[in-house]
Amino acid sequence: MSPFTGSAPRTTTWHHFTYTEDEHGVATVALDRPDKLNALTFDAYADLRDLLAELSREKAVRALVLAGRGRGFCSGGDVDEIIGATLAMDTAQLLDFNRMTGQVVRAVREAPFPVIAAVHGVAAGAGAVLALAADFRVADPSARFAFLFTKVGLSGGDMGAAYLLPRVVGLGHATRLLMLGEAVRAPEAERIGLLSELTEEGKADEAALALARRLAEGPALAHAQTKALLTAELDMPLAASVEMDAATQALLMNGQDYAEFHAAFTEKRPPKWQGK
Amino acid sequence: MSPFTGSAPRTTTWHHFTYTEDEHGVATVALDRPDKLNALTFDAYADLRDLLAELSREKAVRALVLAGRGRGFCSGGDVDEIIGATLAMDTAQLLDFNRMTGQVVRAVREAPFPVIAAVHGVAAGAGAVLALAADFRVADPSARFAFLFTKVGLSGGDMGAAYLLPRVVGLGHATRLLMLGEAVRAPEAERIGLLSELTEEGKADEAALALARRLAEGPALAHAQTKALLTAELDMPLAASVEMDAATQALLMNGQDYAEFHAAFTEKRPPKWQGK
Amino acid sequence: MSPFTGSAPRTTTWHHFTYTEDEHGVATVALDRPDKLNALTFDAYADLRDLLAELSREKAVRALVLAGRGRGFCSGGDVDEIIGATLAMDTAQLLDFNRMTGQVVRAVREAPFPVIAAVHGVAAGAGAVLALAADFRVADPSARFAFLFTKVGLSGGDMGAAYLLPRVVGLGHATRLLMLGEAVRAPEAERIGLLSELTEEGKADEAALALARRLAEGPALAHAQTKALLTAELDMPLAASVEMDAATQALLMNGQDYAEFHAAFTEKRPPKWQGK
Repeated sequence: MSPFTGSAPRTTTWHHFTYTEDEHGVATVALDRPDKLNALTFDAYADLRDLLAELSREKAVRALVLAGRGRGFCSGGDVDEIIGATLAMDTAQLLDFNRMTGQVVRAVREAPFPVIAAVHGVAAGAGAVLALAADFRVADPSARFAFLFTKVGLSGGDMGAAYLLPRVVGLGHATRLLMLGEAVRAPEAERIGLLSELTEEGKADEAALALARRLAEGPALAHAQTKALLTAELDMPLAASVEMDAATQALLMNGQDYAEFHAAFTEKRPPKWQGK
Repeated sequence: MSPFTGSAPRTTTWHHFTYTEDEHGVATVALDRPDKLNALTFDAYADLRDLLAELSREKAVRALVLAGRGRGFCSGGDVDEIIGATLAMDTAQLLDFNRMTGQVVRAVREAPFPVIAAVHGVAAGAGAVLALAADFRVADPSARFAFLFTKVGLSGGDMGAAYLLPRVVGLGHATRLLMLGEAVRAPEAERIGLLSELTEEGKADEAALALARRLAEGPALAHAQTKALLTAELDMPLAASVEMDAATQALLMNGQDYAEFHAAFTEKRPPKWQGK
Repeated sequence: MSPFTGSAPRTTTWHHFTYTEDEHGVATVALDRPDKLNALTFDAYADLRDLLAELSREKAVRALVLAGRGRGFCSGGDVDEIIGATLAMDTAQLLDFNRMTGQVVRAVREAPFPVIAAVHGVAAGAGAVLALAADFRVADPSARFAFLFTKVGLSGGDMGAAYLLPRVVGLGHATRLLMLGEAVRAPEAERIGLLSELTEEGKADEAALALARRLAEGPALAHAQTKALLTAELDMPLAASVEMDAATQALLMNGQDYAEFHAAFTEKRPPKWQGK
């Protein structure tokens, strides 16, 4: 737990997804409306935003798995509960809603721990962008990603997708996927660099959890800084990036895990990482 | 037609390529000097610049196909009419010429409609960059792209190529292609992410037109905003991109196509897109 | 030799690698501690920094090959001589060290000539980043790249790796490689865009040298400007990039190599490049 915890309480129960933490410091968010292919609601977005804020300030977990129960990962915003409802909103409300969804993506990118999306079946619309925002996409052969925003009359640049997707798969593929909104199946997703790991059928959750545990057992501060630099340096010039790397590395060379690596190497034993 | 049309007339005849518009809002520019492999002249660049400016302000078309008649797409700047002529130019004229070619690329990237390059045979020099600037590159197996600028003693960074190519195929491939100027044939182009669609032999024009029609029949404003965000967010940080996406989506959620999607979905019928 | 050479002498002997220049203007740095898999020392970093500064100001060479003698390319920072030593350093010293390593990467990216990494066997840690910073990575099937910084408790963003790697292989692959620190073997490296050329077993040095000679015999100023634009435009918006390309091209159109291309083309003979 971070020492910088003030008056704000932790939420004890998340109503709009299933949330668990294991003894290794691995948290799991499982979207859990299988009858609706885990379609997102206003409440689910709000819970994702608030959970990520709490986890990022508390520092109680070292890795987060984002998964979906049932036949698929997440079909995106619910047609009735979101699309229908937004048709009745005024401009200020529409902006508030779209800012909230974007805050979830920013929170995933800025969280001080790796986020692993475990994808099987459909990852559509906001579901595809959530997976895209994760650090790792572990998917099985049933996975298909569809940035289908134009198919509902909206912009393919939703929740940062027009920023993130070209940086993951290149501008050519990103234009095609965001403009046409067609589904990308697992083999193509792997070929164009959208997947981190392709598992056997039905094994995405298990492999994502194994990766999360491996990361959680590792040098957590080194992982957090690696992620922070990857996120920041997409927006920075080379010279400033090199300087930021130097300062970060100098910081970590004062840390315990770096000394532990050297001790373990010298003693020919595996290091015991403390994450600091 | 845009309401924001003032005194400036539309050009009625383009002398330096073949220009057509169909009843679906699809415009086609066909480079049409087949005996010269569609080598570009000063006049052809000027016409491309002026046509794109007119189309962008008039909003009369919803998609543009850029194709080449004869044995190939475009062999680039004409050796006699451009390279020879530039040798006699003073510095101000050289700058004017190179700014004009760059304006064509900017106009392609900033046009409020998708641009589809239909590539067969050679796309060399400026021809390769024109295809690179397009949103989609639909090519048949005969296509070969050659960013051959260093082979004529010039910089590989011509008309924005050193900006665009690393963002499409990654810095490693882009360095190789721009520094060495070698031809990339269709299979490699597909492998590295330079192609949007690989067609059967001889089918690039047909497939590009089909894609343009499909886009023109779709939610044109959503497509235009998707393209605008992809273009803008290459140059923006994550946080600003997410905010720009939120504002854009709020805007489009007030639009007619989004409401039409919901109505059509509810009534179990295909949406009738109006592009607004 | 550049006319802008002042009082500072050239270093006549490099003690911490083998340095050669051939009659074609090709320089070779061979890391040469084969018993240590060419592990880098403080002195080797300092020599790389100083050599690149001298070569960049003197303009005496037209291409640089970076190779490793013995079983591999470079195993990164020496565990005893660097990791052990840094454990005894204070914060200012740590920052100085990490800035120096970053200066080497900046010097590679900003050198006014192409740098070709010839990789066989292991390219690990700082060795992987040195190869990444090069313009070309010519590797044989034994090559394996490991950005193993997190495995020693440090950030994967070392020496600009968190800036460069996403721009070469995309954010998804870069996150995986930097966060997990696992080795990427030659076939995967080729698939994700990390290699410029995959040679036959044992042929990386020879192929890298051939490429360097070919570049050195070419229009060296055009190559230098292509590299400069590729490096700069990663950090620039589209409009400014197009303007920078226009000014560069206008400059080179006043140059001798461009006129030579036209003369050679007209006379149906190969051009004699002068690099100016």
